[in-house]
Amino acid sequence: MDPLHRPKGRQTRASILDAALGLAAHVGLEGLSIGVLAEILGMSKSGVFAHFGSREALQIAVIQTYHQRFEAEVFRPAMQHPRGLPRLMALLDHWVARVSVEVDAGCLYISGAVEFDDRPGAVREALVDMVRAWHAAMRKALELACEAGDLRPDTDVDQVLFELHGLILALHHDARFLRSSHAVERARSGFKHVLQRYATQTLVWA
Amino acid sequence: MDPLHRPKGRQTRASILDAALGLAAHVGLEGLSIGVLAEILGMSKSGVFAHFGSREALQIAVIQTYHQRFEAEVFRPAMQHPRGLPRLMALLDHWVARVSVEVDAGCLYISGAVEFDDRPGAVREALVDMVRAWHAAMRKALELACEAGDLRPDTDVDQVLFELHGLILALHHDARFLRSSHAVERARSGFKHVLQRYATQTLVWA
Repeated sequence: MDPLHRPKGRQTRASILDAALGLAAHVGLEGLSIGVLAEILGMSKSGVFAHFGSREALQIAVIQTYHQRFEAEVFRPAMQHPRGLPRLMALLDHWVARVSVEVDAGCLYISGAVEFDDRPGAVREALVDMVRAWHAAMRKALELACEAGDLRPDTDVDQVLFELHGLILALHHDARFLRSSHAVERARSGFKHVLQRYATQTLVWA
Repeated sequence: MDPLHRPKGRQTRASILDAALGLAAHVGLEGLSIGVLAEILGMSKSGVFAHFGSREALQIAVIQTYHQRFEAEVFRPAMQHPRGLPRLMALLDHWVARVSVEVDAGCLYISGAVEFDDRPGAVREALVDMVRAWHAAMRKALELACEAGDLRPDTDVDQVLFELHGLILALHHDARFLRSSHAVERARSGFKHVLQRYATQTLVWA
């Protein structure tokens, strides 16, 4: 059995990714260094290296891990709610809750987009793929809300998605950079304004 | 006369700042290096250093120069338009035009916010001051639109500002990171949706 695929190897890989996620949240994906990670973990540089093969592969693995956690925290719990506005609102609620945590740690999608917007390559492509994946998940939730009759059938789903995404970016900016205490409340009011424009009934959102 | 305050000294300082702005747009404020700037300009490192005294002072001067250009390109031309919605719409139009250029070069406010969100110090403070300055200018334009009777007197100006800012962030993200060709159109539709909610008449925006 390949040593990296034994349970112990998988566990070490997971520990490295965990430390790498923590580090990337503060120094960015480009700040990730195998040397610093080895120091944090009390491992040799070659030991860390053996699990990924290259810094680029490590960066991509970090993006994928971040995405899995995002799905687990934001998208999957929302699926428990009935399709339509209830699911859409649950999704946005979980997102806001996550951003509130990320006030301290930063969001890899947002910092990654700024770091890699003009750096072509495999890392940028991995980031774009992840952003497109959650765009697609949001679009699906919006389409289901139209089908369920909660949003008007003529709703411009991509426009709504753009506006909701903007509110999340503003929430991040104001909460994390300006340390504003009103950002969550403003984002939630913004979500209501956007969705109410297309809703077939008056929106009730606790 | 202090050599740095002679016309020649001012001209050299301006050339350094110009090169530094171009460099920062691509590598970020933290990527600014006096060595690289000296190379670009064919000057000695000590020659560049003499004009600023420290890398931090250079970073702050770059932020201030960026802000002056932003004011000259976005805010000042909008002041030619009558106060109220015409001025507000001109302001947003100039902003969108500027972002369209920045698809290639990046926005220092946005990249700076991500770079410095968890790095306390004088550079972060300079960035926050600049962002607060344009927030204040936008708030003023919105208040004048209320006074002019173009927006309802009960308009929540800070909420509108938050939503407009979100649309600008989404425009940047989609145009620069996702290379979307629809971002400008979506941002402009978003501006209309936000302003129409408070406008006293139907919005006409060419």
